[in-house]
Amino acid sequence: MSHGTLRVSKIKNGTVIDHITKGRALDVVKILGINGRSGGIVTIAMNVQSGRLGVKDILKIEGRELSSEEVDKIALITPHATINIIRNFKVAEKQTVKLPSIVQGIVKCIKPSCISNSGNEPVKSIFYMEEADPLRLRCHYCNNIMEEKDIFQQF
Amino acid sequence: MSHGTLRVSKIKNGTVIDHITKGRALDVVKILGINGRSGGIVTIAMNVQSGRLGVKDILKIEGRELSSEEVDKIALITPHATINIIRNFKVAEKQTVKLPSIVQGIVKCIKPSCISNSGNEPVKSIFYMEEADPLRLRCHYCNNIMEEKDIFQQF
Repeated sequence: MSHGTLRVSKIKNGTVIDHITKGRALDVVKILGINGRSGGIVTIAMNVQSGRLGVKDILKIEGRELSSEEVDKIALITPHATINIIRNFKVAEKQTVKLPSIVQGIVKCIKPSCISNSGNEPVKSIFYMEEADPLRLRCHYCNNIMEEKDIFQQF
Repeated sequence: MSHGTLRVSKIKNGTVIDHITKGRALDVVKILGINGRSGGIVTIAMNVQSGRLGVKDILKIEGRELSSEEVDKIALITPHATINIIRNFKVAEKQTVKLPSIVQGIVKCIKPSCISNSGNEPVKSIFYMEEADPLRLRCHYCNNIMEEKDIFQQF
């Protein structure tokens, strides 16, 4: 007996995030707050063959388009992803995620003594990209370096 | 331009969990500790059409077979799942998950005062199945009813 091939039909309206760094799809799922309870089709393929990257992840989400804030977060964890907006079964828009050189208002500095955490007045967090993979960000205010795990934990 | 159909090749060796209750695949993923970093192919399809259940989830995991403890946990959150062990591209074993009437040693009673949480001596937790969907378990020791969210949080 064979277990067959999993074929997932095209989605009518939604988003396909392709060329996700291998093994990172579940981080993207977490960023998007996907838990499967909304009822739309969601397919996730991890560590599948890809001509371009060798091995990649893919995520398809029916009935959903992404906000620019969500795209910015995704860029941090998978800077080579491509985002295709699907409308009526066709790719209506294509976005290439770009790794930012400055990251503003997305993550907080983990150093409690940093002025951005003073709590007296709202301070927008600002980080500079030190390294993309593994991700390392440097705080504008206190120069503290945040490592990848500290950043991903905030999503 | 079309975005095509996602086709995921057969896995050579591993496990296919089919007929997962819709929207529950990510809970199964969490139970199995899958994060995508191990490198094997993992595919997750949520809320896809199924003749038998109407809508279901499917999970395929390359290079992994499940322990009986993992199967017991999965039974709690998706009692109609079927588990196929794949070896050399073929279904080598088929298991049907069964909802247990007694649940032992899998979850802890959330009532701090329950004797099973006394900590003086090891007490194996025992619960009786009150309801399957939504899941409700009754503690053998203190009769406390645990609701689904209290149970799922422990996985």
